[in-house]
Amino acid sequence: MTATAPPFSTIAIAGLGLIGGSIALGVRDRWSSCRIVGVDRPAVLSHAQGSGAIDRAVTRLADAGEVDLIILAAPVSQNLVLLAEAASHAAPHTVITDVGGTKRDIVAAAERLPASISFVGGHPIGGAERGGFGFARPDLFVKRPWIFTPAAASASAAPLERLFALVRGLGAEPTIVDAARHDLLMAYLSHLTQLTATALMHVAGQGAAADGLRLAGRGLLDTTRLASSPASVWTDICDANADLIGQALDQLIETLRALRQDLGNADRIDQLFSEAARWRAELIKHGQ
Amino acid sequence: MTATAPPFSTIAIAGLGLIGGSIALGVRDRWSSCRIVGVDRPAVLSHAQGSGAIDRAVTRLADAGEVDLIILAAPVSQNLVLLAEAASHAAPHTVITDVGGTKRDIVAAAERLPASISFVGGHPIGGAERGGFGFARPDLFVKRPWIFTPAAASASAAPLERLFALVRGLGAEPTIVDAARHDLLMAYLSHLTQLTATALMHVAGQGAAADGLRLAGRGLLDTTRLASSPASVWTDICDANADLIGQALDQLIETLRALRQDLGNADRIDQLFSEAARWRAELIKHGQ
Repeated sequence: MTATAPPFSTIAIAGLGLIGGSIALGVRDRWSSCRIVGVDRPAVLSHAQGSGAIDRAVTRLADAGEVDLIILAAPVSQNLVLLAEAASHAAPHTVITDVGGTKRDIVAAAERLPASISFVGGHPIGGAERGGFGFARPDLFVKRPWIFTPAAASASAAPLERLFALVRGLGAEPTIVDAARHDLLMAYLSHLTQLTATALMHVAGQGAAADGLRLAGRGLLDTTRLASSPASVWTDICDANADLIGQALDQLIETLRALRQDLGNADRIDQLFSEAARWRAELIKHGQ
Repeated sequence: MTATAPPFSTIAIAGLGLIGGSIALGVRDRWSSCRIVGVDRPAVLSHAQGSGAIDRAVTRLADAGEVDLIILAAPVSQNLVLLAEAASHAAPHTVITDVGGTKRDIVAAAERLPASISFVGGHPIGGAERGGFGFARPDLFVKRPWIFTPAAASASAAPLERLFALVRGLGAEPTIVDAARHDLLMAYLSHLTQLTATALMHVAGQGAAADGLRLAGRGLLDTTRLASSPASVWTDICDANADLIGQALDQLIETLRALRQDLGNADRIDQLFSEAARWRAELIKHGQ
């Protein structure tokens, strides 16, 4: 890539897990002149420093000093606390964004901050079933959507343009979706998927037991990939998006209940399979 | 591989879909001297002959002539009809097996045949989400379990030993499970997995619509891989194993309902995730 100037010269990343760590590694690869301050626990910081992902390590966001961009990359409930901290230490030119999987809560919190604070909610759609800096990689976001949810009242488009440039530099495809629609879509596409994989693995494991699992095909292995996800990220998301996840779960439960009634009805089974296969063909169009 | 004699010199395969076609290709690779008669519709037969998978093509099992082994590889309800046909045309030394995904029905049907008929139920755990001869490949069964469900009353172990040799030649790992336990395990490991993937894709597609699906992560794509499966195989299985699939579905519905109640309860979410992750670690041990 050409050595264009980075859209932000100094970046503080609060939380160097899979997402925060991958941002640090990606920015480092793309713009060697960009200065990155990592904020996390000492053990994580030393891991990140050892791999050259960050220039400076601090355990509190307040100690990060003046930066152009603050990225909140902790679990979503902690991001709410970090947002208040970031707002109270931000310089007038500092942009704040986050990478949390739910957006209504943090966007609403940001709207209650002084108008001088420049916050744009964000959510990179990447991820993997393994969390933590150890799984971070600079190409995590390549060709994946990165959603931004700017507040309607947002005075200036400039921060958003710079954030677009930043995530394009990481290979991502930035897009704008409002916070409520983001949370609805993620309830169906991401949160429901995670909970279904977890519930399926639970039931299949209990039903077949360890001895039976050796007879499983690749189908179960692939379908339950997400069941290896750490709960730490998900307890917050389940709580923050409970209303919309509940709605999606209700529809899944209703679909399964109808299916259970129709097991002997070839026409109904055929119809459900055909519709699902059509939706998946649609999904594949957008997949990598 | 060394050129040992094939355990069966002549094999008729009724149904040259993914499984039957892959058996033909695998046997052809392993034992070039083995003579394979394919039984299917003319279009499928010409495809199979064109790729060298079979030596002779017939549209009716009755026309296959005298063979050492008949493999029933049609959907499970058709296998029941084919079993009666095979039994009425079998030579005294002919062994009959099948590859259907449910076993209680065909094993019970075989027990009602004359004692001279040598039938051993079988089920290779391989498969893929795409059916048909076009997706067949000789290595489909490599390192995968191949379950046999011999009847308790079975007089001789010789047919089973020859079937073990056959599937080992295809790279599979033969194992014995009784028919009732097979059907219970498959209800939890395979049938529930398929129906869950289909139902999830249906609900996610309806909830997010085509425009929303472009924002899906890889999680949904992987978790719903099986939702591309053709209904044709599954209408039979859902009907034949309805009682045990219903039991598995009830447990999944109950797990999802409890989860829905617990969305705001971090301890319960944490517990469910931990248990599911433990089961998946167990599953991975046996995966490829």
